[in-house]
Amino acid sequence: MQLGFVSAILPDLSFDEVFQFAAETGYDCVEVMCWPKGRADRRYAGITHIDVTALDAAGAAKIHQTVADTGVSISSLGYYPNPLTPDAAEAKVAAEHLSEVIQAAKMLGLDVVSSFVGRDWTLSVDANWQRFLEVWMPIIAFAEDHGIKIAIENCPMLFTKDEWPGGKNLATSPAIWRRMYEAIPSPNFGLNYDPSHLVWMQMDYIRPLRDFAERIFRVHLKDARVDRERLDEVGILAHPLEYHSPKLPGLGEVDWGRFLSVLGDSGYNGPVCVEVEDRAYEGSLEARKRALRQSHDYIRQFLGK
Amino acid sequence: MQLGFVSAILPDLSFDEVFQFAAETGYDCVEVMCWPKGRADRRYAGITHIDVTALDAAGAAKIHQTVADTGVSISSLGYYPNPLTPDAAEAKVAAEHLSEVIQAAKMLGLDVVSSFVGRDWTLSVDANWQRFLEVWMPIIAFAEDHGIKIAIENCPMLFTKDEWPGGKNLATSPAIWRRMYEAIPSPNFGLNYDPSHLVWMQMDYIRPLRDFAERIFRVHLKDARVDRERLDEVGILAHPLEYHSPKLPGLGEVDWGRFLSVLGDSGYNGPVCVEVEDRAYEGSLEARKRALRQSHDYIRQFLGK
Amino acid sequence: MQLGFVSAILPDLSFDEVFQFAAETGYDCVEVMCWPKGRADRRYAGITHIDVTALDAAGAAKIHQTVADTGVSISSLGYYPNPLTPDAAEAKVAAEHLSEVIQAAKMLGLDVVSSFVGRDWTLSVDANWQRFLEVWMPIIAFAEDHGIKIAIENCPMLFTKDEWPGGKNLATSPAIWRRMYEAIPSPNFGLNYDPSHLVWMQMDYIRPLRDFAERIFRVHLKDARVDRERLDEVGILAHPLEYHSPKLPGLGEVDWGRFLSVLGDSGYNGPVCVEVEDRAYEGSLEARKRALRQSHDYIRQFLGK
Amino acid sequence: MQLGFVSAILPDLSFDEVFQFAAETGYDCVEVMCWPKGRADRRYAGITHIDVTALDAAGAAKIHQTVADTGVSISSLGYYPNPLTPDAAEAKVAAEHLSEVIQAAKMLGLDVVSSFVGRDWTLSVDANWQRFLEVWMPIIAFAEDHGIKIAIENCPMLFTKDEWPGGKNLATSPAIWRRMYEAIPSPNFGLNYDPSHLVWMQMDYIRPLRDFAERIFRVHLKDARVDRERLDEVGILAHPLEYHSPKLPGLGEVDWGRFLSVLGDSGYNGPVCVEVEDRAYEGSLEARKRALRQSHDYIRQFLGK
Amino acid sequence: MQLGFVSAILPDLSFDEVFQFAAETGYDCVEVMCWPKGRADRRYAGITHIDVTALDAAGAAKIHQTVADTGVSISSLGYYPNPLTPDAAEAKVAAEHLSEVIQAAKMLGLDVVSSFVGRDWTLSVDANWQRFLEVWMPIIAFAEDHGIKIAIENCPMLFTKDEWPGGKNLATSPAIWRRMYEAIPSPNFGLNYDPSHLVWMQMDYIRPLRDFAERIFRVHLKDARVDRERLDEVGILAHPLEYHSPKLPGLGEVDWGRFLSVLGDSGYNGPVCVEVEDRAYEGSLEARKRALRQSHDYIRQFLGK
Amino acid sequence: MQLGFVSAILPDLSFDEVFQFAAETGYDCVEVMCWPKGRADRRYAGITHIDVTALDAAGAAKIHQTVADTGVSISSLGYYPNPLTPDAAEAKVAAEHLSEVIQAAKMLGLDVVSSFVGRDWTLSVDANWQRFLEVWMPIIAFAEDHGIKIAIENCPMLFTKDEWPGGKNLATSPAIWRRMYEAIPSPNFGLNYDPSHLVWMQMDYIRPLRDFAERIFRVHLKDARVDRERLDEVGILAHPLEYHSPKLPGLGEVDWGRFLSVLGDSGYNGPVCVEVEDRAYEGSLEARKRALRQSHDYIRQFLGK
Repeated sequence: MQLGFVSAILPDLSFDEVFQFAAETGYDCVEVMCWPKGRADRRYAGITHIDVTALDAAGAAKIHQTVADTGVSISSLGYYPNPLTPDAAEAKVAAEHLSEVIQAAKMLGLDVVSSFVGRDWTLSVDANWQRFLEVWMPIIAFAEDHGIKIAIENCPMLFTKDEWPGGKNLATSPAIWRRMYEAIPSPNFGLNYDPSHLVWMQMDYIRPLRDFAERIFRVHLKDARVDRERLDEVGILAHPLEYHSPKLPGLGEVDWGRFLSVLGDSGYNGPVCVEVEDRAYEGSLEARKRALRQSHDYIRQFLGK
Repeated sequence: MQLGFVSAILPDLSFDEVFQFAAETGYDCVEVMCWPKGRADRRYAGITHIDVTALDAAGAAKIHQTVADTGVSISSLGYYPNPLTPDAAEAKVAAEHLSEVIQAAKMLGLDVVSSFVGRDWTLSVDANWQRFLEVWMPIIAFAEDHGIKIAIENCPMLFTKDEWPGGKNLATSPAIWRRMYEAIPSPNFGLNYDPSHLVWMQMDYIRPLRDFAERIFRVHLKDARVDRERLDEVGILAHPLEYHSPKLPGLGEVDWGRFLSVLGDSGYNGPVCVEVEDRAYEGSLEARKRALRQSHDYIRQFLGK
Repeated sequence: MQLGFVSAILPDLSFDEVFQFAAETGYDCVEVMCWPKGRADRRYAGITHIDVTALDAAGAAKIHQTVADTGVSISSLGYYPNPLTPDAAEAKVAAEHLSEVIQAAKMLGLDVVSSFVGRDWTLSVDANWQRFLEVWMPIIAFAEDHGIKIAIENCPMLFTKDEWPGGKNLATSPAIWRRMYEAIPSPNFGLNYDPSHLVWMQMDYIRPLRDFAERIFRVHLKDARVDRERLDEVGILAHPLEYHSPKLPGLGEVDWGRFLSVLGDSGYNGPVCVEVEDRAYEGSLEARKRALRQSHDYIRQFLGK
Repeated sequence: MQLGFVSAILPDLSFDEVFQFAAETGYDCVEVMCWPKGRADRRYAGITHIDVTALDAAGAAKIHQTVADTGVSISSLGYYPNPLTPDAAEAKVAAEHLSEVIQAAKMLGLDVVSSFVGRDWTLSVDANWQRFLEVWMPIIAFAEDHGIKIAIENCPMLFTKDEWPGGKNLATSPAIWRRMYEAIPSPNFGLNYDPSHLVWMQMDYIRPLRDFAERIFRVHLKDARVDRERLDEVGILAHPLEYHSPKLPGLGEVDWGRFLSVLGDSGYNGPVCVEVEDRAYEGSLEARKRALRQSHDYIRQFLGK
Repeated sequence: MQLGFVSAILPDLSFDEVFQFAAETGYDCVEVMCWPKGRADRRYAGITHIDVTALDAAGAAKIHQTVADTGVSISSLGYYPNPLTPDAAEAKVAAEHLSEVIQAAKMLGLDVVSSFVGRDWTLSVDANWQRFLEVWMPIIAFAEDHGIKIAIENCPMLFTKDEWPGGKNLATSPAIWRRMYEAIPSPNFGLNYDPSHLVWMQMDYIRPLRDFAERIFRVHLKDARVDRERLDEVGILAHPLEYHSPKLPGLGEVDWGRFLSVLGDSGYNGPVCVEVEDRAYEGSLEARKRALRQSHDYIRQFLGK
Repeated sequence: MQLGFVSAILPDLSFDEVFQFAAETGYDCVEVMCWPKGRADRRYAGITHIDVTALDAAGAAKIHQTVADTGVSISSLGYYPNPLTPDAAEAKVAAEHLSEVIQAAKMLGLDVVSSFVGRDWTLSVDANWQRFLEVWMPIIAFAEDHGIKIAIENCPMLFTKDEWPGGKNLATSPAIWRRMYEAIPSPNFGLNYDPSHLVWMQMDYIRPLRDFAERIFRVHLKDARVDRERLDEVGILAHPLEYHSPKLPGLGEVDWGRFLSVLGDSGYNGPVCVEVEDRAYEGSLEARKRALRQSHDYIRQFLGK
């Protein structure tokens, strides 16, 4: 496996600076954020390390040069909008920009784009389904045509009051993944698997590594700490951030030795990218770099180099 | 403590037959359902073992006679509507009928009425709060005037699709209970504590026995079995019945020896009533009677007689 | 479900006395041992409560009369030989007598016979397979012709030195069950499920209740206590009785409330029979009766009556 | 095994009434309290159901008649003083009265007397040791001469402030038992084993059943509930009753199915006596009788009859 | 947070050498031991890396120079005597020297002094209380006047026979801390929190991080390994070192990822100092340096740099 | 302790290259494989880093030079044949070559040879015993004469079908170790302790560290991951590799902080050697080096340097 990180945590650095930092710290790859420029509404969203709308042959060459110079590869292009939002204009932007990210990935010789399927959070899963099919069948067909795989992160996007009750991403559980892959059985439609969300959803985060082995295109390394005394106060009907906290790997419940060794033994040999959403490390660029250094060293003990 | 059951499970029997069966089986008391006549829309709802709208001195005397004859007492009058439903007509009926149940309890010389506070299930807790205060301040004041305590069951009423996302009862967690009792600090406003809901909400069901000792007016004995393999499939964002099942005491996760002994050691010495909502025992009157016999024998080993 | 016991523990009583005792104790049914007369070589083996070789219409009528008089039914006929033993003469007797038990079951209007598939314990599972098919395909075909289901107990028959290394019964694990039912896919070929063996084999004894729901024809209620300090001395490579003991229900590791409620919720509604193999209760007929009384009372708290 | 109880919980009943109640409730035996008359200083102490100082042939005959009439036997004579107390006069009374209890046991044809070895609670175990030897060597020699076994209960007698820091009984742990039996290796010197104290001392209460099998002369059935939230407040350096409560069997941490089955499998076949020290059942004679009925029924499910 | 260590483990090195070693190893700070010169009676006690009685402006300047040269700061001055010892002369020395340490801290521009409150170990907590107030009220007042906070370590000082029964430090549990801070509610009176002692006292070592967040002035990083087989032999009434061992972080029961992340999330951002009391690393200066290198690397994976 | 590795994982490197790599990676020592040349039938077997049959003074001097140059010592010579195999010729080779390894160890000034006792895997332990004594008494006597200790690894050598049912090494459990050391009580006969095998045999891998402290001559660091879902399918009667996988330290069930600290606290201060048998790291020389680098870094955090 190749150890990387998600570039969203370094919005203050340019593409080249991100790759320089990755190389110095010992990372093998980076998942590069490709939001449309000028849109930074959600925490960790709106970062543009590659502006895909402006990407041309010269830009691609420059990117390849940085990759070659640093020895750090691109694990995937990442863009995590809500293409099923009830706001029709926003949904249209999401789908259109996703097409541009797919084309950019092809131009750069990559094979994976990471994203969310989205959700109208005011509706049930069933009530979202028809629209999910309408929106995603053409996207996956487009991705297939370009030889790109789409890796959907299993984040429920249900942390705060304004995402209540349904969250902004349908792809949250094995039951729903099965339904998704039955409905759209393309080999280009898979997962960007993040174990931390299964932790706070009280689920087995090991078993899907085997059950969905051929669907796991990418992996996010994020941990979650469930605080019993907070959970005992509010129960699982509360907003999830009322009783758990996203943390760096090693600061939560995930058994990383088991996770990474079962992942490898299940045949996965691709990138695994640290995703930093730990508020304790957000105060400054230096703190966020510290988070990436600490996570690198913590994970390396289970991966080697 | 006095061992009883909730009469909702025996809709086919009359008040007298219910008490006769309770006496034969060894129960000490019964929580008597007092829904308005002719309304049986929800499972376990709409049962009328005492028609409070028609209760007069003669009716009360007849009830007292049955109590005296069988040696089985009334633990409380029960009516579990949704007084905060967005359907204004239904909410009005709920509040008005609750007044009648309170008056009937007084007429019968009882001191507790069991109920739900309700909820507009399409809105957040905060968005329900103002209306909760408007509806419940007068009800509690009315209850105080009549010397009646209101015991609110902590059931989220969030089991199926049509109760999604918020459930039909606000009073689901210690945090919300604290907020309720701060807003309406009447000593007549308390809990009808059911541990089974804390089980599937992944909460400590022992600690509140001490923290809310003076608020626990009544107790429901129901168990819940969380099925790991179902939960691992759908996670806690699913409808709760997708991964757990209400069960008779002894067939689920609750440690009843610990529960009942901590309850007693915290100073509670009132009725504890078996509430049967186990689908495995619903096929016939005989099966439901079997459920009550089995539950009686199971609980007696921790309570004695 | 109907609560019964396996008659092997009462060899000193006649068929009528067994049913009389069952009725007095509160049991609903009995699994009746039908070994060939005069063969008592193995512990718990060789018991003949019905001599199927001598059964005629008059004998059947007498049996039905006892069933009617006591209100205790026959859950199945039981015969647990080793039809795959390397001793060809013994294997022939086993297969032939099994045919007679099947015919007797039909004559008595029953639908299940309980047994072992057997094993040449000196050979691997693979090396037994061809012979398993040769012996069991005709038996199952014969059973189908007579409308009888065969319920195979999942006991490894590997407790002592002389059963080492392979044990005397192939049907020990879900993996082998799957292989068996793929090879002989008859709807008349199923399990007599005993959770205690999965306990000492360190396996999940709940999951197969759902995975093999349609194959579970009968259930044995036996418990097993694994003694850590013995296991820590000898490890799982020792003979299993060196670190565990078969026990009455409630004296071992099985969570019977969970077991019986998941069994019922999976759709099983047939007999569940206590099988006594607890050495602490074998000293006398009175001790064995005590074992059956104690087990009856213990299990009833989860089943009711 | 024979199920009994310790008579100390029924001070208001006479010897005959105690045995009458035992018979009605289903008990097989009673451990009879034999304190000197007129001394009721400690909770559960000072009870005199047989006045051994006044026992003569006629008294013994009367006792045997009650035993014969009720079918309830005497499991042992019990007297639990502190023979190592720094109060020399009290220590002398303890040793002398113990001799009288031993002689009474012989007169009644019994073989066991139950007691404490005591301790000067202000001194360390080492500092008590010389006096322990001086006091107990002659007592055990005297017991040997009379054919009586002494069963020492493993209660630390360290519950309240005035027993701090050492408690009033040395015989609290396997390490000390070993030291005791090495110093006084008489086969008449053994244990009256109570698992509940090992629970709150955070010890394995199963292992000694095997390690001390030949020393366990009698067994007390008492449970203990450790309350985490209390323990988390005060830690184990607090007085033990600050974080645990003695409870009836089934209301605490002991796994009684495992305990009783390992006890039996280790060769024990003597009396097991419920000891009631649960404050929740002390309010009245009726409550204490209820405790004994409930405990009887709870334990019977693991012992049978 | 800043990672440091307690200088007591390096008595053979001078102040400058300690800071030199800290810098080479990667530590950010050091808690500097300030015992009176010439007193080395207790293990880990009596170390003098700064002689506060001789400290003048020149000495302070030299210390600041070392801090500046190495980039390693002083986390606090440490002195851990028993100011409540029954030996009046020793108690007087303790209190007086503590004043000198406080003055030295002020002179050095520091804000915290670390210490014990002490205890007459032959007396109960209650019996110590009046003297505790008499001794500590003036010390805290003195500290307030000098702008210094006093951080009391929660070590029971109860490891060996000569500290039995009460230990030499009162400040051992949340219950006692609450009592202390109610009696002396100064904002300058807090904790030097060491989780390892809560481990062997069977307490939750996470919860106080939140409950006492504003009282935690400093943190010691020490681990403890409870050995079950030793505990099962002697129980919690034994001297604690009979069943547990102080260990380096990572060699015991503490979950350091959880501990450090909850600590940080509770708002703590000060020094955390490794305290080495692991006998396996005491054989030589080299072994003790190895302990500090190993602990540094182990903790850094959860803290980063 | 000195951290080393077993050279079997680097068959492609020469003795000098192995030691060079060890030095670069930070290892302190190496267990050197000494199989007869030209025999590579079993996985990880047949490696010859020192050809003991050809070892002369010049060869020994060259080896010492490499040790001196690299600063990496030899922990022991390793040769793991089956001296009890039913193939008489193979057994003879094994015993004879073992003598040569012992002589080589002496010539090199070492004190330990690591090996297996072997087993006729078709026979029970008892049936192997006489031959075990005949074969091993002279080997141990020979080792004693040469001042060499024999460290037997506790690997059952029972992973695949052709080692079924008994495995190819008797020395698998504490019970058998005791029997071995009673039969051959030489102080030169001990263990090469590997915790990973006790993990999959469901045994306590900590307790023997104390119980066999004086017999543990060497230690292998290997981990094992038991996969519940595989075990639940096949049970412990399956070949062990059907439900567990050997893994690098940190990727399995062993708690290495506890393991290494109890090992040290039990008095062990010798070499601890990483044994790589993790299939995930076997694809290339580079992957195997990565395994050794990763294991070194993982273990160092608990050992220091």
